Amino acid sequence: MEPIKPLIIRYPDRKLWKDALCRPSYVTDRKIVDTVSAILHDIESEGLEKVCEYTRKLDGWDADPVRLKVSEEEFLNAEKNLGKELPAAIDTAYENIRKFHEAQLQNDITVETMPGVLCMQKNIPIPRIGLYIPGGTAPLFSTVLMLAVPAGIAGCRDVVLCTPADRSGRVSPEILYCARKCGIENVYKLGGAVAIGTMAYGAGAISKVDKIFGPGNAYVTEAKQQVAATVCSIDMPAGPSEIMIMADDTAVPQYVCADFLSQLEHGPGSQAILVTCSETLAAQVESMLGRQAENLGRKEFLKSSASNSRVVLLKTEEEMADMVNMYAPEHLVISMAEPWKTVGKIYNAGSVFLGNYSPESAGDYASGTNHTLPTGGWAKSCSGVNISSYMKKMTIQELTEEGLRSLGPTIMAMASAEGLEAHGKAVEVRVENKSRKL
Amino acid sequence: MEPIKPLIIRYPDRKLWKDALCRPSYVTDRKIVDTVSAILHDIESEGLEKVCEYTRKLDGWDADPVRLKVSEEEFLNAEKNLGKELPAAIDTAYENIRKFHEAQLQNDITVETMPGVLCMQKNIPIPRIGLYIPGGTAPLFSTVLMLAVPAGIAGCRDVVLCTPADRSGRVSPEILYCARKCGIENVYKLGGAVAIGTMAYGAGAISKVDKIFGPGNAYVTEAKQQVAATVCSIDMPAGPSEIMIMADDTAVPQYVCADFLSQLEHGPGSQAILVTCSETLAAQVESMLGRQAENLGRKEFLKSSASNSRVVLLKTEEEMADMVNMYAPEHLVISMAEPWKTVGKIYNAGSVFLGNYSPESAGDYASGTNHTLPTGGWAKSCSGVNISSYMKKMTIQELTEEGLRSLGPTIMAMASAEGLEAHGKAVEVRVENKSRKL
Repeated sequence: MEPIKPLIIRYPDRKLWKDALCRPSYVTDRKIVDTVSAILHDIESEGLEKVCEYTRKLDGWDADPVRLKVSEEEFLNAEKNLGKELPAAIDTAYENIRKFHEAQLQNDITVETMPGVLCMQKNIPIPRIGLYIPGGTAPLFSTVLMLAVPAGIAGCRDVVLCTPADRSGRVSPEILYCARKCGIENVYKLGGAVAIGTMAYGAGAISKVDKIFGPGNAYVTEAKQQVAATVCSIDMPAGPSEIMIMADDTAVPQYVCADFLSQLEHGPGSQAILVTCSETLAAQVESMLGRQAENLGRKEFLKSSASNSRVVLLKTEEEMADMVNMYAPEHLVISMAEPWKTVGKIYNAGSVFLGNYSPESAGDYASGTNHTLPTGGWAKSCSGVNISSYMKKMTIQELTEEGLRSLGPTIMAMASAEGLEAHGKAVEVRVENKSRKL
Repeated sequence: MEPIKPLIIRYPDRKLWKDALCRPSYVTDRKIVDTVSAILHDIESEGLEKVCEYTRKLDGWDADPVRLKVSEEEFLNAEKNLGKELPAAIDTAYENIRKFHEAQLQNDITVETMPGVLCMQKNIPIPRIGLYIPGGTAPLFSTVLMLAVPAGIAGCRDVVLCTPADRSGRVSPEILYCARKCGIENVYKLGGAVAIGTMAYGAGAISKVDKIFGPGNAYVTEAKQQVAATVCSIDMPAGPSEIMIMADDTAVPQYVCADFLSQLEHGPGSQAILVTCSETLAAQVESMLGRQAENLGRKEFLKSSASNSRVVLLKTEEEMADMVNMYAPEHLVISMAEPWKTVGKIYNAGSVFLGNYSPESAGDYASGTNHTLPTGGWAKSCSGVNISSYMKKMTIQELTEEGLRSLGPTIMAMASAEGLEAHGKAVEVRVENKSRKL
């Protein structure tokens, strides 16, 4: 294997920052768009039978309407087969995630904006939620916790989870353990665009959901985009994972390298960027990365994503903060002398890890923060998954007769200026007729 | 003009509810998709010159880079020409909207999930916001208040507003008055897909924004969808406006008719549905609608949208609430004996108006609630515009060395089970080496 050598960019002019921060390009394959579109169309028009047919064909097991749903026996077997250590770890992570997300619940708001004019903002759980968890050899059961714990706390009424089965029709016991831990009863053995389509349109006994959460491959991402345009909300735009590390001379190069590599192992499109004002650190990281990588697996990912990765030298902390805000990283590690002071300058980032003892993997699994975060620069305008991702705000207003009388002239003047006569009439008819009932 | 006669549906079986609640169909015209796509591509690749060229061609005035921006003189003239009454009305509405949205500001949250594991959720304004306000003969200046007041309260750094000029290069003085009232300095005379593209990609001195808000025609809607998939967030999916009215024998038929008609005047695709358990009310509304409509303008809209409108008779309040939740109306008027009790059963609606003195037009203009609301059933999963539409939540975590030591085994067990070795190493390297700096 070639050594892991990120590109080093020394004190780039601001005009060149955009190039220095370029992300791996991500072209939507026309074939994927068409395949997904055909699958969604078939599921919408033909329902459950088509869902089973696709599952037999694409996932290679003998799917039928009954076996699509994970049975009580399968849940119990999963729990039996997991041993002690992993369930204990999952339970600890669950508790931290629960505590942090529970604290995010918001109060309803009531304001009397004028005498007799009462306005309320009420938080309401989104009724029907669909979660998608990819399968594969190392299923990402931690994402079940990240998506299902806040759904439970928000009080969403129906939560279904889809994850693909292997060729013998079995799904990961870790995923089942986490699902049950979060109180999810309805788990379906469905994968890819078929899973997304089934949740978006409903099929047989599987009800349509209002919002779909969860990661996946290019087919899942495309299917989520397509349903989001028409029938069903989604959590956020998806893209390859990324980390930015801000570090000065107080950073420990070993730790910086370890965080850098933990990002690169995610997949071939991952990106890691170290932004530093320390020549010493840059040199140490450069020489240490290869050595640390030697002892790791997933070499093909490390190698491929290392080519997307960079070390950028800048003069001042202000420049470093500006560069972070321009990139808007999904994950940001701040290994600087005064991390709380530095983070005060950051306004575009998904989740931030402060100091020498907060590796990204702490947040990926167990600190309590969510690991479903905006990638691709979407941190400029989007939040990571949090309790409000599962709720919506409905407003309510009640005017008394006196309230409408005092606000009436305002409403009528504005309606008239906008040429919306009937809007004014709806006030007039009420204040002219007093409370006389016809 | 034909009389306004909504379709009356009497006690439909639940299986037929979906048909009874069918919305006007909304087909995306391939020609619009392609036209918009070409405009966006041109603006992205050729910038300001192309923006001016399109504006000259589509809006018919002599646009150049300097004249695109509304000048100080234009702002002052606008204020001079408005008279007294309308500015006073706008100021009252502004105050109510400000009070209600200010109350929505959220506190940051800090939780120590375990000793030494600190998690924080920080609310941060989205830095760069773009607002779009359609032009035309009766410009919707109230939407400036609805979109710009919360942007100011949230603390968004840069807010630009685009609205098309007429053929002499002038924009509505009402819009300019509202923009200035909300502290917006940068107003550009741009319309339609050209405005959306300019804000999404930036052009000349007009910076790219992070999120675009605002209503518009099919071109604007399509342009927002296209940029939302790639470069820029948008407020919400757009569609024709709609109202549902829940009413029993305590409702005043005159008021119900007035609210019904105020919805229909919005445009040809508007929809109004009365859901009632009162035969008397249904009959009164049916006979009264035509008479009230006779005195109104915008007859072509009333007529066209009346054909989308219905009166549905149901037996019980529970059924009525179920039907509302299935439809998920943008606006819901509840004219029932105990409206607060009834609204407790509603979980899918954008904004709700309680009792006999809360017409929809109160919320459209001045009660304090926002009038930018989810249409087309999106109220199942989306909120109307509110203060959090202008903010995002960034998480921050800081672990102490002890915190990482106690959480370390959990992280390592989960990382190992997910096959992400480097994630575990990022913990190991820190807890093995204590704080020794290499």
